[in-house]
Amino acid sequence: MIKTDILIIGAGPTGLFTVFEAGLLKLKCHLIDALPQPGGQCSEIYPKKPIYDIPGFPEILAGDLTKNLLEQGKQFEPGFTLGERAETIEKQEDGSFIVTTNKGTQHHAPVVAIAGGLGSFEPRKPLIDNIAYFEDNGVEYFIKDPEVFRNKKVVISGGGDSALDWSIFLANVASEVTLIHRRNEFRGALDSVEKVKELKDLGKINLITPAEVTALYGNKQLEGVTVTKGDEKILLAADYFIPLFGLSPKLGPIGDWGLEIEKNAIKVDHTRNYETNIPGIFAIGDVNTYPEKLKLILCGFHEATLMCQAAYRIINPGKKYVLKYTTVSGVDGFDGTRKEAPKAVVQSIQ
Amino acid sequence: MIKTDILIIGAGPTGLFTVFEAGLLKLKCHLIDALPQPGGQCSEIYPKKPIYDIPGFPEILAGDLTKNLLEQGKQFEPGFTLGERAETIEKQEDGSFIVTTNKGTQHHAPVVAIAGGLGSFEPRKPLIDNIAYFEDNGVEYFIKDPEVFRNKKVVISGGGDSALDWSIFLANVASEVTLIHRRNEFRGALDSVEKVKELKDLGKINLITPAEVTALYGNKQLEGVTVTKGDEKILLAADYFIPLFGLSPKLGPIGDWGLEIEKNAIKVDHTRNYETNIPGIFAIGDVNTYPEKLKLILCGFHEATLMCQAAYRIINPGKKYVLKYTTVSGVDGFDGTRKEAPKAVVQSIQ
Repeated sequence: MIKTDILIIGAGPTGLFTVFEAGLLKLKCHLIDALPQPGGQCSEIYPKKPIYDIPGFPEILAGDLTKNLLEQGKQFEPGFTLGERAETIEKQEDGSFIVTTNKGTQHHAPVVAIAGGLGSFEPRKPLIDNIAYFEDNGVEYFIKDPEVFRNKKVVISGGGDSALDWSIFLANVASEVTLIHRRNEFRGALDSVEKVKELKDLGKINLITPAEVTALYGNKQLEGVTVTKGDEKILLAADYFIPLFGLSPKLGPIGDWGLEIEKNAIKVDHTRNYETNIPGIFAIGDVNTYPEKLKLILCGFHEATLMCQAAYRIINPGKKYVLKYTTVSGVDGFDGTRKEAPKAVVQSIQ
Repeated sequence: MIKTDILIIGAGPTGLFTVFEAGLLKLKCHLIDALPQPGGQCSEIYPKKPIYDIPGFPEILAGDLTKNLLEQGKQFEPGFTLGERAETIEKQEDGSFIVTTNKGTQHHAPVVAIAGGLGSFEPRKPLIDNIAYFEDNGVEYFIKDPEVFRNKKVVISGGGDSALDWSIFLANVASEVTLIHRRNEFRGALDSVEKVKELKDLGKINLITPAEVTALYGNKQLEGVTVTKGDEKILLAADYFIPLFGLSPKLGPIGDWGLEIEKNAIKVDHTRNYETNIPGIFAIGDVNTYPEKLKLILCGFHEATLMCQAAYRIINPGKKYVLKYTTVSGVDGFDGTRKEAPKAVVQSIQ
């Protein structure tokens, strides 16, 4: 059982910044995310897209924002349960919660902060009858660790940036990369499209368009796929089939936790630290709703910060917290590091 | 009369970020600040101090944050009235406001956003009888344009970073710089203290400690000061006397505008865009108070953003605003510039 002070569901920008603000209050955080890496949408959907409305950044790539937030929180040593979806929550007699993921990992905390963005990103799956049979046995919707594919035969399917970028990346890792798309046209960054063309000409990517993977075969483990191109059926040996058809956000199991839901978002008390109708469970960032709510990252940062104050009071009942400014007091990491402004010297000049 | 959409009182980080968020809604801003440059405390009090709790910046110097915020808002062409203090406000029949500064500059806007931080920073003044007589005639509490002091005789008084830094800077501008401090010990950044010592040894700064300026003389324009050092009185010719004894924030004339005040801060409705008790006047950032308020820059950013939505509705009654994401829609500047994410190409790979 993983124990922490604030259990954060969702490792997008709001969840990541919570680690820092909680850390200033000496509270420890653990984050659960269905995606295989932190950053939420910013990492998974648009890591190379510039964002213009993060205060203080005239322009920042979403992937860089994630990196910065990880860096900002790292001295507070957050824990991560990645690639797993928070599934059930049980309130304990002492008011604390146990949250269990779809893979059975259990987490115990006095405070739960749902920073779930638009929901957990579920992959859009191709309509192939026995695809569920091969999931985790050759069919992958996310790439967690590219090393898994070293010297393997990989079939990637899709026509967007993810399909292009992973084909490029795996061209130097897998023994064979086949990219299949139902149209001749790809939609992605210009340099990605050009790079795939170049790798195709070098024989490092095998391109089949317009075509679709229509069947999977194998005994427990995937061994091959059938590619249908017009009237033609091509049998292709494959250790892995990676359909990258995009993600669609779903509130998912959180919707059954007894929280008040409005328009697919969790209602919170915005006059008091964004608590939900269940005391001890908060919702911050895009996942919540309240009068005048704006689904902006900068609003999630503010909501996370106020939420931490309420979490502090739950975890340290009766103890008064006095706000300290980092400019004045510095930042003491849980890892023993200390950041602080250079001290002024007091010195006479002779 | 200066006309704008949102008149912002205070050009600190919250006021500066308002320019950007208002700009996204096609609203124009004008900022008034008592300090001679934008940035508020961040520029005037601690430009070289690192801040650790701005989301996405593991560390940023306060002065750099100001620079970034100016850069982020510049395409929305904000106007500035600097070095003047907002003094009076008059509500017009149509619900708009006229704000007049201590120097008589008038501003007209349908919405006023007070982003006044801890108040307007008033210089701490030395207790010299006729000092008011020489203000603007040789006595300066801020340095707006260092060129004013070129080839002049300057007496600086104070023992902190401002006194040290300006003595260093003006040593190469003024014909004569005298630094006077009532103690032998200075309190400041180590390199500033060392640099002053070096310039003293080179004869470029004339240092008198422990001493005080106790009298000023001149006919309309300052001509000299009396420096008292123990029992000794030294007469010193001086074109300028610059006492740098620090700033103390005062809510100031805003306190008399009929706004509900609580603990030296302006009460706002935090359930609805941080409006004050006077419709059309908002208070954002450190200057406001509401239940659970935290005086953090990142909270000011959120408050500014929500306030802009309310301002939009006042300025465009009946018009519905649909939130657009900068990542998707880009940013169209009032100066004709456009920022946007590189477009995806749709292209077949042959």
